[in-house]
Order: sequence, then C-alpha cells, then structure tokens
Amino acid sequence: MSAAEQPWPRDGLFARLRAACAPEWRRYVEHDFVRELARGTLPERAFRHYLGQDYLFLIQFARAYALAVYKSSSLQDMRDGLAGLKAILDDEMSLHLRYCRSWGLSEADVEHLPEAPATLAYTRYVLETGMAGDLLDLRVALAPCIVGYGEIGWAMARDPATRRDANPYRDWIATYGGADYQAIALSAAAGLDRLWQERAGGGRFERLVRIFGEATRLEADFWQMGLSAG
Amino acid sequence: MSAAEQPWPRDGLFARLRAACAPEWRRYVEHDFVRELARGTLPERAFRHYLGQDYLFLIQFARAYALAVYKSSSLQDMRDGLAGLKAILDDEMSLHLRYCRSWGLSEADVEHLPEAPATLAYTRYVLETGMAGDLLDLRVALAPCIVGYGEIGWAMARDPATRRDANPYRDWIATYGGADYQAIALSAAAGLDRLWQERAGGGRFERLVRIFGEATRLEADFWQMGLSAG
Amino acid sequence: MSAAEQPWPRDGLFARLRAACAPEWRRYVEHDFVRELARGTLPERAFRHYLGQDYLFLIQFARAYALAVYKSSSLQDMRDGLAGLKAILDDEMSLHLRYCRSWGLSEADVEHLPEAPATLAYTRYVLETGMAGDLLDLRVALAPCIVGYGEIGWAMARDPATRRDANPYRDWIATYGGADYQAIALSAAAGLDRLWQERAGGGRFERLVRIFGEATRLEADFWQMGLSAG
Amino acid sequence: MSAAEQPWPRDGLFARLRAACAPEWRRYVEHDFVRELARGTLPERAFRHYLGQDYLFLIQFARAYALAVYKSSSLQDMRDGLAGLKAILDDEMSLHLRYCRSWGLSEADVEHLPEAPATLAYTRYVLETGMAGDLLDLRVALAPCIVGYGEIGWAMARDPATRRDANPYRDWIATYGGADYQAIALSAAAGLDRLWQERAGGGRFERLVRIFGEATRLEADFWQMGLSAG
Repeated sequence: MSAAEQPWPRDGLFARLRAACAPEWRRYVEHDFVRELARGTLPERAFRHYLGQDYLFLIQFARAYALAVYKSSSLQDMRDGLAGLKAILDDEMSLHLRYCRSWGLSEADVEHLPEAPATLAYTRYVLETGMAGDLLDLRVALAPCIVGYGEIGWAMARDPATRRDANPYRDWIATYGGADYQAIALSAAAGLDRLWQERAGGGRFERLVRIFGEATRLEADFWQMGLSAG
Repeated sequence: MSAAEQPWPRDGLFARLRAACAPEWRRYVEHDFVRELARGTLPERAFRHYLGQDYLFLIQFARAYALAVYKSSSLQDMRDGLAGLKAILDDEMSLHLRYCRSWGLSEADVEHLPEAPATLAYTRYVLETGMAGDLLDLRVALAPCIVGYGEIGWAMARDPATRRDANPYRDWIATYGGADYQAIALSAAAGLDRLWQERAGGGRFERLVRIFGEATRLEADFWQMGLSAG
Repeated sequence: MSAAEQPWPRDGLFARLRAACAPEWRRYVEHDFVRELARGTLPERAFRHYLGQDYLFLIQFARAYALAVYKSSSLQDMRDGLAGLKAILDDEMSLHLRYCRSWGLSEADVEHLPEAPATLAYTRYVLETGMAGDLLDLRVALAPCIVGYGEIGWAMARDPATRRDANPYRDWIATYGGADYQAIALSAAAGLDRLWQERAGGGRFERLVRIFGEATRLEADFWQMGLSAG
Repeated sequence: MSAAEQPWPRDGLFARLRAACAPEWRRYVEHDFVRELARGTLPERAFRHYLGQDYLFLIQFARAYALAVYKSSSLQDMRDGLAGLKAILDDEMSLHLRYCRSWGLSEADVEHLPEAPATLAYTRYVLETGMAGDLLDLRVALAPCIVGYGEIGWAMARDPATRRDANPYRDWIATYGGADYQAIALSAAAGLDRLWQERAGGGRFERLVRIFGEATRLEADFWQMGLSAG
C-alpha cells in the first residue's frame, strides 16, 4: 500500500510527535503482541490477560476523559471530553464485559482483577500528567492509545499478512480497523492541532514529545504485559 | 403544612448539615429574591440578571460534575457524576438558552456576559474545595445548590402565598417544584449518606459544616446579586 | 517622573498583559484605597479590615505556591515555587500577625475571621484556574498580586503626593516600595517570560488576557472590600 | 530482639494498615534487595541502578509533599507538608547527588536517566491517588515509603546478620537506621492517626487498605527493579 493511501495525517501535531518518537512508536505499533494477534497466533492466555487489564484500563480512561471536561475552557472542549466519557461508561464497558464473557471471563472475574503494574503505570501517568499540565498535555498523553489503536487497526485490516478467516481475534481487528473507530482516531488527531493553535508554541513541542514518548513506551509495556502472560 | 408531609430527610448527613447551618440556610431559602419570585413581584430586570449568570454557573457546575467523575473510586460514583454532567451539557444548557430567549436574552447576549463576582466566588469555591478534598467534600459543596433548589421549589409549589396565575416566574417554580427535580434533589441527599458511610467519621462533620455553610452563604449572595440588579 | 525611570518591564508578557487590560489595571493600581493609603487618609477601620482579610489571603496564596511546585516540570520551577511558599509560611505570616497586633488585632481575632466574599472569590479563582490550566496559567493568575503590589509600592514610594511623615501606613509603603519586594516583583515578571518561551504561543495570549483581567478585577474588588468597611 | 523493644506503633492507623497488608508488607521489608544490602552482598550494579532511580523518585516525592501543602485545611498540615518539601528540595537532593558521585554517578548521569517503569508506576500512583482523594489518602499512599524505610533501617541497624564492617552500603544503613530518620518516620505514623481522627470512619479503612497495599506492592517492585539490574 502506498503512503498516499495512508489516512493518518502527515502534517500536524500528531504526525510531528510520532516522527519525533519514531523508534518508540515502531516498538508500540509493531509489537509482537500486535503481529501475533493479526496472524491469529497470539496465545489465548495472553489475549485473555490483556482483555481483563483492558477493562481496568477503561475505568481509568473514563476518569481521564472526565478530567478533560474539567480541564476545558470552552464548551466545545467540554463536549469533546463528554463524548469520550459517555462512549466508555455508557457503551464500551458493557460491550467489553460481553466480549470478555465470550472469552470465558465473567464480570465478577474481571472486576476483581488486581491492576497489573503496566496498567497502573500507564493510566496513572496519563492522569497525573494531565492534572499537572493543561488540556493539551492530557490529550497528548491520551493520543498514543486513542490514535495509535486507530493506526494499528487500520494497518491490520489492510495488511495481507493478517489472517482473516478463523482468526480468533477477528472481532478485535474489525473494531479498531472499522470505520467507526477510524473516525474517532482521526478526530482525536485533529483535536490536537486545534489545541496546539489555541495554546502552544515556543519550546512546548519538546515537552509534548517527552509526554508522547513516555505514553508510547507505556503502551508497548502494556502489550508486553499481555504477551508475557501467554 | 405539617412537618410530617415535608419530604426532606430529617435524618442523615444533609439534615444534620442543614441543622448545623440553620441561620445561613434560612437566609438562603427564604431570601427576598425567592419570596418575590414566588409572589411574582420580583423585578424582571433582577430575574434576567440572575438568568444570565445562572447560565455561566451551569458551565462551571458541569465542570464540577466532571470533577466528581474523576474523583470517584467506584463505577457507581462515576455513573452518578456522569448523570449530572450529561443532564447539564446535553439538556439543561439548551433548555436554559431557550428559556433565556423567552426572556429576551439571546444566546450571544448570554455567552458574552462577564461572570459576576458572586458567580465566580461560588463556583470556584465549589470546584476548589472539591479538588483539595475528596468526593464527599465536593458533594457537600454542591448540596446547597442541588438539594436546596429542591427544597425551595417544593415549598414554593405548596405555599399558599405563591402566586400561580399570571406569575411571570411560573415556569421556574414548576421546574424546581416538579417531580423530576424533586427526585434529583432527594437522590443527591441520599448520595451524601452513602459517601459518609464509606468515608467519613470522627471530626469530619465539623469540616463538612464549614463547607456546607460557606456554600450556603455563597448561594444567598447569588440571590442577592440578582436582587441588587433589579 | 519620566517613563525612562519606570523599572517595570515595557516588553515581555507582563507588559503585554497589563496593556491588554489597561482599564482594569488602572482601576486596580489607582484604586481609592491605594490613593488614600498613600496620603494617610484611609480610615483605620478600612485598613484593619483589609489587614485581617490579607492574612486569610496569605494562607490561600501559600497553597497556590505549593500548587506551583506540584505543577512544575523542572527543578528550577519547583525551587521558584518553594521560595514563594517558604517566604509566606516561614516569614510573612508571622510578620503579618505581628503587624496586625500593632493595629490592635490579636492572632486569635485574625484566625477566627470569616473569609470575606472578595477574599474567597479572588483566592479560589487563582487556585482553580491554576489547577485547571498549567503552570503559566497559575503564574499569570498570581501576577496582578505579586507584580502589581510591586508597581503600586514603587509608585507610592516615589509619588510626591505620598505623605511620608506621620503616615500611619508608612510601614506598608516601605515594605512594598522597598528594594526587597521590588526584586521579588521583577523576578516574578521575568519568570512569566521564561514560561511563555517554554510553553506558549498561538492563541494562548488571549486566554491569558482573560485570566489576567479577571484576577486584576478581583484585586480591585479586594481594595473595595477594605474601603467599604471604612 | 523482643517485640517489646520494637519502636513501631502497635496501635493506630499505620499498625492496622500494615497488619491488613501483612503479606505485601513482608515482601517489601524483607525483599532480597534489602537482605543483600544489609549483608553487603548486593551487586553494586543493582545498588547504582537503584540510586539513580531514587533521585528521580525524590523529585516526584517533592511534588507529592507540595500537593500535601495544597491539600491541607489547617496551618499545621501545611507546615508538615512544607517540612517534607524543604527536606527534599533543600537538603536531600544535594546529599543524594553527592552520594551518587561517591558511587561514580555524576549529576549529569543521574539527571538524564529515563524513569524506569517501577519508578513511574509508584510515583504517579501516589500523586494521582492523593489528587483524587484527600490529604489522608495522600499520606497513606506515602506511608509505605516514609514509615517503611524507617522500619527497614531500624531493623537493619539492629539485626545481627547485618554486616557492619566493610559493608559498602553502611552509609545507607546508618541514614535510615539513624535517630534523625527514625524521628521522621515515627512522626509520619503519628500524623496518620491525627488525620484519621479528623476525617475518617466507617468503611474508609478498607479503601485505605487498598491504597496502602498498592503502594507497598509498588515499593517491592522498586526493590525488584534494582535487584534485576544487578
């Protein structure tokens, strides 16, 4: 596939951050967990561990979206944050629990899981960085997850190496490679540019690179946590 | 009307806080702004000033509910906060703007109003107290507004002195005296008890009295701001 | 006195913010409270009320400096915040109490004062704006106080209309017009430029103008609170 | 040594929390890193890795003390927080850098270290838990570090298995087993009781156990990070 078809913005803040953190980004989006999931060779135990932690992760990400609403200085920013918060608390969490059940994890199983160190490190880093900084810092800390899953899903859905038939993870691929999630991810990337215009300049880019790079490393650690449980 | 018919809880944290702040509470719920609104004698200029500031107030209260979601340590608390946030951002703000228009205030008028000192003092006190403390501190700071408007609306709807026909403020009275708002207010009062059980004890009551009393005084100042504009 | 002698920076962020809020700034630095204090005609009752509230104000400003340390992303910023925090908690509060005593206000008197609405509005606005935004937002919200008192003291110490002999407020004038406080104020103004370089750009200036303007209005309200008590 | 000589409070909140998290506590205070440090058999590489991360840890703990000042509702609590903040920023960080130099780590080496996942997880968990909750939540999250190092140092200084002569880590043992640090640790434990009396009750203990247990696990992970680098 030619770069021209790649829908991910080649300009703008997200593209600049990704370029500035290229090695970390590659370790994240091309992690073995991702590769094996696409090929259907990921051990089910690894996926199940990831699924359970992803539920605990969602709870903290809902808190991060609530923080984004609190941190907003315009109604537009408040509504953007609320959309993410509702998506998680009203829809994704119950979808996630249903999906967990299809993998043999009951609601009770999932709710009593302790948070793995990788879950804890990533989610608290995002929340704390967002609280200490402003809305742009928070949105940049969220981007490797929100935009990154879109890029991973998009690439996976189009990669000839992806196993489509009888891949136990086809639902996951369909979700993140699907049009609905792609729209969410692109809108999050566009939102970063708007916030940059409104707030940032000067040496701020370097600080945002640090946040983006740290969050990307923590995302890769999250895959590794899953893979190591396999 | 006998006390027996009074639906407001006579036990529980809210009742104890109200009793501990009885003079401030009376100055708030029996403020001349309230009395004149019930009788339909409040100058329209006063009401219009209040309406505009109440819109700016709603924006900050939406942020306070978002903060409540962030501050939650259970899904139940997160969902309670989200319900309040959605109610404001998805419904009340557009209803409020429509109501403002019926009073001759356009959306542009309202959105460009500067925040009055009384609006600013009250809303930032609530947000800041909630951030410095925990979810119970935040909920106690919100209570004079959420539960108090219920008590005021309930009493007004039943008071023989209230003018019902041709009262220019009948919609306001119908809203806060109506069953929907009453349910919101009672549920907020019940939520305080749950949080107290979960978190508090010892000398905490005295600290909560300070918060409740301060927030009640600031609510009375908000009425006064309206009245003084009349 | 020619503008050339004016030590306040004519470039840089502080100068731009002051210029953008010129009417509010004038109402603050040329407030009747200030004028009468310089001439020694301010009613003592007004000054005493101001003094007591200023103590409560200091407590909240100590919290704001602590917030600045928390919000820092460099050791330099942390140390700057700590310097302000130590200055208040280790020195200024006891100096302030001693000064209060010389005005007939005992420590017990001062500690049991309720916060006036103007105190509450100003301090919570600063704290809340700083929490929602980043360190630059917080420092801009603090600037009308920290830098403004320097400008007021500087002008007062040099104004021929200032009464020097037998002015009951000569200590106040000596403090804020003195070299120590002037250095603090200039260093705070310089700090704003450093933070702007590190973080800001684009449309951020307009947002900072809103914060600076609001904080300046709230400072003028604080003088008015004193004056109205006279 | 008999339990009767053990100076650690056997009543009070800290003792109850430690008892409620007994297995996690043991894994922390009896971790192989601790044991080998006492015997002088810890690989120097492991200790050096720990030292560098401990410097990054101190920076975040300074921010946590600043947060404690912000979160205070009494001057006493503010001063307690300031004492911790000054101890770190004014003294411990330069002592730590000097100690690092004696282990061959220059200031530049240490300042450019990336934060290890264990450092990041622990420090951000403490900061975020403290921000979401109140001062008691924050102090409980800090306790496994502050009080725990006291307990570890005390035991180590008295354990006949500790190698005293020619132990490369004797300075570390002398610091945490010494009277100065013991006083800090005991005072932190006493502070927890005061805050509990002022604020807590009901089901709060269970929530605090979760925080204490999580922070203790993250402390053990911090030892493990050091040991694994050996």
